[in-house]
Amino acid sequence: MSIYSLNVPLDDRSYEIVIGKDFFSQWQDVPSIQPVLENRTCFVITDENVQKLYLKSVEQCLTNLGVRYLGDYAFLPGEKSKSLSTVKSLYEKMISAGLDRKSIIVALGGGVVGDTAGFAAATYMRGIDYVQIPTSLVAQVDSSVGGKTGIDLDQGKNLIGAFCQPKLVVVDTMVLQTLPIRELVCGLAEVVKYGVILDEVFFSFLEDNVSSILNIDQTVFQTIVRKCCSLKADVVTGDELDQGGRAILNYGHTFGHALEKLTSYTGLTHGEAIAIGMGMAADLAVMRYGGSELLNLVKRQDDLFQAFGLPVKFNKFSPEEILLAMAADKKCIDGNINFVLPEKIGKVVIDSGIEEDLIKQAIGARID
Amino acid sequence: MSIYSLNVPLDDRSYEIVIGKDFFSQWQDVPSIQPVLENRTCFVITDENVQKLYLKSVEQCLTNLGVRYLGDYAFLPGEKSKSLSTVKSLYEKMISAGLDRKSIIVALGGGVVGDTAGFAAATYMRGIDYVQIPTSLVAQVDSSVGGKTGIDLDQGKNLIGAFCQPKLVVVDTMVLQTLPIRELVCGLAEVVKYGVILDEVFFSFLEDNVSSILNIDQTVFQTIVRKCCSLKADVVTGDELDQGGRAILNYGHTFGHALEKLTSYTGLTHGEAIAIGMGMAADLAVMRYGGSELLNLVKRQDDLFQAFGLPVKFNKFSPEEILLAMAADKKCIDGNINFVLPEKIGKVVIDSGIEEDLIKQAIGARID
Repeated sequence: MSIYSLNVPLDDRSYEIVIGKDFFSQWQDVPSIQPVLENRTCFVITDENVQKLYLKSVEQCLTNLGVRYLGDYAFLPGEKSKSLSTVKSLYEKMISAGLDRKSIIVALGGGVVGDTAGFAAATYMRGIDYVQIPTSLVAQVDSSVGGKTGIDLDQGKNLIGAFCQPKLVVVDTMVLQTLPIRELVCGLAEVVKYGVILDEVFFSFLEDNVSSILNIDQTVFQTIVRKCCSLKADVVTGDELDQGGRAILNYGHTFGHALEKLTSYTGLTHGEAIAIGMGMAADLAVMRYGGSELLNLVKRQDDLFQAFGLPVKFNKFSPEEILLAMAADKKCIDGNINFVLPEKIGKVVIDSGIEEDLIKQAIGARID
Repeated sequence: MSIYSLNVPLDDRSYEIVIGKDFFSQWQDVPSIQPVLENRTCFVITDENVQKLYLKSVEQCLTNLGVRYLGDYAFLPGEKSKSLSTVKSLYEKMISAGLDRKSIIVALGGGVVGDTAGFAAATYMRGIDYVQIPTSLVAQVDSSVGGKTGIDLDQGKNLIGAFCQPKLVVVDTMVLQTLPIRELVCGLAEVVKYGVILDEVFFSFLEDNVSSILNIDQTVFQTIVRKCCSLKADVVTGDELDQGGRAILNYGHTFGHALEKLTSYTGLTHGEAIAIGMGMAADLAVMRYGGSELLNLVKRQDDLFQAFGLPVKFNKFSPEEILLAMAADKKCIDGNINFVLPEKIGKVVIDSGIEEDLIKQAIGARID
């Protein structure tokens, strides 16, 4: 078994991302897992889908590690659970189970579980430790690393939250085999994002491995998860609290969040929304900066998304409606929207003060 | 006008506590206030009592400082408002008012307002800045300094929260003149606490100034607030995240929180509960360590509380009920309760592993 361990260096908030495949039964032999969990009281938070598939195995792992298992709570799967009312239920379960300030939360699931459980951990008794065990691709390559926890309000996604780094992230790529294909594809949108914003070689690797990726080839996914986590860790280390450099990770997200919001978080997956959003951002870059390199980027990005079965266009709502929904996003400072726009594959810039007409034009180009 | 400014040095989270009297109209001339607020968009959180008394003046101050005033929200006064449902309303008002990540919250009120508004600020868009303008004595000498924000659950006080330092604390002791006497006396319990845990000279100062204190003499209160804030700032600087030294501030609170919980946060004020709780803790110290110095401490502490009109005994609930309520407190780690016990006036220790019988005896001695 080959297990890869990657450090996220953040002073006293540093932690390891452990990446392997099919190694649930071997956690107790991994040097970076043992010290975080042994002799702790622990509570697992998951959703009902993941509960059925992996809760028993994880409970066994934790017991093998000498953890005192205080209980678990599984909420309904899906973005709707990422709410204050779920968090309230979690708090009550955590109190009843007897979690104290030294206990540790295990977040077992996709992005919704990780964000919600992370927020509950960040605020329970003014903050207790938590571990991420991401089971969706989007969580493995993106949301489980970096300490952004949060929940949604009716007015928008992730409007409430806290920065709170996990103590450990454990990624088993084998679990991707039980992921519904639409969920896997959703994660691929974030994977493509890393290529566009930071790494052309990685982007080409994705282009060259489309069929292996769709077949969930474990070797290819070990490479993908390691590369994405490594890129994400570098960005997070440079800007833990999202005050500058981290903004590039929002490529496609300002548009994408607006689309998710307009479809009430049910019409599109997060990945579908940001694939379309990255299309809009790339088009906006072409309109603003021009040049054949950017035109080529749009083509390669669209082609790769389509090869993965991701949408690049949309047929609901007007540019005006989408623009209005974007204005409520939390990345909007004092009414001015900051856009992450590509210059070429592997490099993006932050651009603001773009006139509304151009933004609407870029949105319009992606509406069928 | 004499304005005193005290720095709380916490690296990039450092801030000033500005203490003066009747200086609302002069904020714009205070060098440590101006830079925190000027050119910010701002939202004031208060309660309905304080709203009537001071909101207009504060709005004027803020406008004089060049703040863009986005609105305010006043909730019902009292501990019952320190809830998730208040926080939810706050989030919704803050979104509607257009607060973004660069906006600043002004918490204008007592401990409930400060804790709740602080928690809303700590979690809105993963954390925005806030300023404390404490208007109760307990908030001026204790809760507004140190960055502990939080809300209650039905299961106990402050079970949910975050560490999030304010950017500035502005204390005007003149507002104590409009405080209901029971609220003022409530704050005096915390004031006495500082003397017992850290400063015998200050304790004697309080003994020597009982009547001036009850007459709300401004000169005496300038001394009291400066001394308490200075002691609190030292403790917080040494242990920002409550992992050790800060525990001494909980003297009397483990017992006191249990009493507040059992009376549903309505029978006793916080100050009344911790006065009785400090009595229980002092009795427990006598039983555990013995000695005439501790007996003398119990007498002086009781006498001072009674001079202020604070209770030192209680006539409801059995020691068993109180002990059970204490076990749910968040300071209880792995079932073991840590007690802050005095050795002499000005010095306390943390003690744990105390047998239940002795604890019940100490509680029983304070039940009429």
